[in-house]
Amino acid sequence: MDRSILHRQLAPEAWHQPGLSPLNKLICILILLASLVAILETEPNVRRLIPGVLSFLEVVFVSLFILEYLLRLYVAGEDPRYRGIGGRIRYVFSIWALIDLVAILPFFLGFLTHSNAFLLRLLRILRILRLSRLGRFSRAWSALAEALNARVHELLLSVGVAALLLLFSSACLYVVEAAEQPEAFGSVPRALWWSIATLTTVGYGDVTPITALGKIFAGMTAIAGIGIIAMPTGILAAAFSDAFQNNDNTQGE
Amino acid sequence: MDRSILHRQLAPEAWHQPGLSPLNKLICILILLASLVAILETEPNVRRLIPGVLSFLEVVFVSLFILEYLLRLYVAGEDPRYRGIGGRIRYVFSIWALIDLVAILPFFLGFLTHSNAFLLRLLRILRILRLSRLGRFSRAWSALAEALNARVHELLLSVGVAALLLLFSSACLYVVEAAEQPEAFGSVPRALWWSIATLTTVGYGDVTPITALGKIFAGMTAIAGIGIIAMPTGILAAAFSDAFQNNDNTQGE
Amino acid sequence: MDRSILHRQLAPEAWHQPGLSPLNKLICILILLASLVAILETEPNVRRLIPGVLSFLEVVFVSLFILEYLLRLYVAGEDPRYRGIGGRIRYVFSIWALIDLVAILPFFLGFLTHSNAFLLRLLRILRILRLSRLGRFSRAWSALAEALNARVHELLLSVGVAALLLLFSSACLYVVEAAEQPEAFGSVPRALWWSIATLTTVGYGDVTPITALGKIFAGMTAIAGIGIIAMPTGILAAAFSDAFQNNDNTQGE
Amino acid sequence: MDRSILHRQLAPEAWHQPGLSPLNKLICILILLASLVAILETEPNVRRLIPGVLSFLEVVFVSLFILEYLLRLYVAGEDPRYRGIGGRIRYVFSIWALIDLVAILPFFLGFLTHSNAFLLRLLRILRILRLSRLGRFSRAWSALAEALNARVHELLLSVGVAALLLLFSSACLYVVEAAEQPEAFGSVPRALWWSIATLTTVGYGDVTPITALGKIFAGMTAIAGIGIIAMPTGILAAAFSDAFQNNDNTQGE
Repeated sequence: MDRSILHRQLAPEAWHQPGLSPLNKLICILILLASLVAILETEPNVRRLIPGVLSFLEVVFVSLFILEYLLRLYVAGEDPRYRGIGGRIRYVFSIWALIDLVAILPFFLGFLTHSNAFLLRLLRILRILRLSRLGRFSRAWSALAEALNARVHELLLSVGVAALLLLFSSACLYVVEAAEQPEAFGSVPRALWWSIATLTTVGYGDVTPITALGKIFAGMTAIAGIGIIAMPTGILAAAFSDAFQNNDNTQGE
Repeated sequence: MDRSILHRQLAPEAWHQPGLSPLNKLICILILLASLVAILETEPNVRRLIPGVLSFLEVVFVSLFILEYLLRLYVAGEDPRYRGIGGRIRYVFSIWALIDLVAILPFFLGFLTHSNAFLLRLLRILRILRLSRLGRFSRAWSALAEALNARVHELLLSVGVAALLLLFSSACLYVVEAAEQPEAFGSVPRALWWSIATLTTVGYGDVTPITALGKIFAGMTAIAGIGIIAMPTGILAAAFSDAFQNNDNTQGE
Repeated sequence: MDRSILHRQLAPEAWHQPGLSPLNKLICILILLASLVAILETEPNVRRLIPGVLSFLEVVFVSLFILEYLLRLYVAGEDPRYRGIGGRIRYVFSIWALIDLVAILPFFLGFLTHSNAFLLRLLRILRILRLSRLGRFSRAWSALAEALNARVHELLLSVGVAALLLLFSSACLYVVEAAEQPEAFGSVPRALWWSIATLTTVGYGDVTPITALGKIFAGMTAIAGIGIIAMPTGILAAAFSDAFQNNDNTQGE
Repeated sequence: MDRSILHRQLAPEAWHQPGLSPLNKLICILILLASLVAILETEPNVRRLIPGVLSFLEVVFVSLFILEYLLRLYVAGEDPRYRGIGGRIRYVFSIWALIDLVAILPFFLGFLTHSNAFLLRLLRILRILRLSRLGRFSRAWSALAEALNARVHELLLSVGVAALLLLFSSACLYVVEAAEQPEAFGSVPRALWWSIATLTTVGYGDVTPITALGKIFAGMTAIAGIGIIAMPTGILAAAFSDAFQNNDNTQGE
């Protein structure tokens, strides 16, 4: 097979038609399947039900990813930056090639515990970001990124206000509830757990204040939580509104 | 009675005045009542209190829906597509006629368990969607749909980001908490249950991390949950704002 | 004292300066104090701590409200609609005079249980709405009301979608979990309690699914809950944005 | 060292370049570190692990803050308002100088309990607000403040509506559930705790209604909670949208 044809199929930036090349589409599906297998393999009930099947699939996927890695190494020569032996070494140490490598390695590192190997294996899913970089989502992405960028100071301000609120509400609860519930509110870092759950309106309820004063502070914190959600949402809505209109105007001209 | 008059009354697309025809209004009310009866019938306390009454009402409703089905089959001939025997057969297999049929059938299928029959019976409520299709909500619906459509890529992007966050936060909690709470965090699919409850800010609290590291990851997940809510809300707000203004401009011209 | 001066002080629509008249301000404060006393009186600990004090205050407040009621009846004659004996009777049966009466009555109805009397007493707080009707919030109120009105169909649509989601998610959980948790999911009305807590992202956690299938449906419901919040928020944001701009344009012209 | 140079370094309003002066940057970092130490010191496990280390750091930080306080007192003479002995006394009683003092004092007040001293020590973090006042966030801050200001009546209205809802929902639950759960719903102030947790969609779940009627009211409260969040978010989004556009237009001219 001609190396330049393979290069066009493998390198997203060399594919000049809209969307992904057929080969990259296939690789995306393989990555998703491999991630699904990695996720399911963590569940003991699944391992017991179909012993060996998932390990076998893992061998298949890793073999295919090794093949893909070698092919990418081979076609890298089409890119002037990675030509020759020195270029190939530079390619191997480029960020995406390292991620490709990390996605294969855990298979060979037998000394890893089960869950650590899993985390490395999950990195594979990042490779989808690379492959889809030039997909049709790029315009939507740039519109959102532009909006976030234009209002980065306002967003950081609301993050700062939220951080101050987090700190003061957990400090108040620590002062008020520490004597009653030393396990849950015995220090500010411990009270932070409650404070985050309340200000984000998650509200697990595993720790709640029991004194009257603690409940009053907690109620005020919960009400402040609405502001913590409304503020960035409002900023984002306004920013997106501006960005979409600018986008439409630019297109209209 | 004249078949064409009945057709105008029954077929929403043949009714040329605003709103629903009187007969379809009646059928809508019947559907709502029948759904209410079906819902109440699932409650054992209600069945004990008024035994027989709900079953009797069910017989009444099914009889009326059978009558309606036969009438619709009869007036279908007014529509050129469904004329003649072949047309009627084609009508019977059209999507809405099938839903009409499904809403009647469970009554005759004695072999269904109680709860399965209930699910089928609930499908009746979908029929309201058909009848109200041409109501005055159609313009509001098209405005919302147009707005969603114009920003479908941005919305899918934020869904994708949310999915990645879901996956990574449950992976982190699995790695950190699996040893301590094998029942709740013993695998990634199990940790997903916690992760969804946290990122959507529902926060049941039936499973919460207990290690310090787990709480730190969980806190970061909860904070990210604000973004998960703020992002699509902001996009929708901006999209609706655009759609409403376009709508107003179009009307103004 | 001159009746017309007293009328201007008491009737909000006869006061032509911005804000409330001094007498109505005083009455507003009285209403708030009386409501606070009514709220505190429900707490047994407070009743035990200062026995008699709250009951005494209640007598004072009711006496003042009776005085106010009689004065309003007296000055109603300034309004052409309520002139003469027949006019006064018409005044007594006007909506706001009835609410004024209801706020006094529970004091004299000894046969009421404690908590029922409380509910009636709380109605007093509604009287603030009447007094502040012509305050400086009226423009803000009309701007919000106008925005809600302009998008009432879109908002009703999203309420309808939310209601359908509520119904289907509780139906699914009923089918899946009824056998395991008959107390919490044994009927659709029971499952609705869980469903509302999840779709509104409140998430009490007093009932949660325990089967795998139930958790999958619940996760999908929780994710749909984001849409349930984002949809009306987006519509309101867009509607307010339009209303504020129209308002500014009208003022600018 | 020249006093005027030191003044430019210390007084944020005398620094005419963008951002903070190098000395103030250092002080900001010191404040953050001192706050972090104060937070960590509340945790018994940390105190046990590294006994003495945090107390030693506290001595270092307080010494540095005393030095800073004396330097600020010295350079205050550069400001015409604080010149001379009388000016210095005026400076000592200015708001920011008092906060600076409060941040040092708890160290010398041995009679304070541990947690009270902590609260005072946390006040130090407020000093960051002063130092960063003239940073690059000031424009973002003024844009947000302007938007909040322009819609202050609408926001207060939605706060008022939320307060009424809070009151009525806790009154309803008190009436319905008081007999069943006297501890949680035995008075309106107690029911408020549940009501706040529900309307803000936090939903701890430590108290939930158990009667059928209580659950119906609670469900309606939870649904109203969506409005409580959507209303201010929508107002903020619209207000920010206006403010950003005005800002852009002003810059464009």
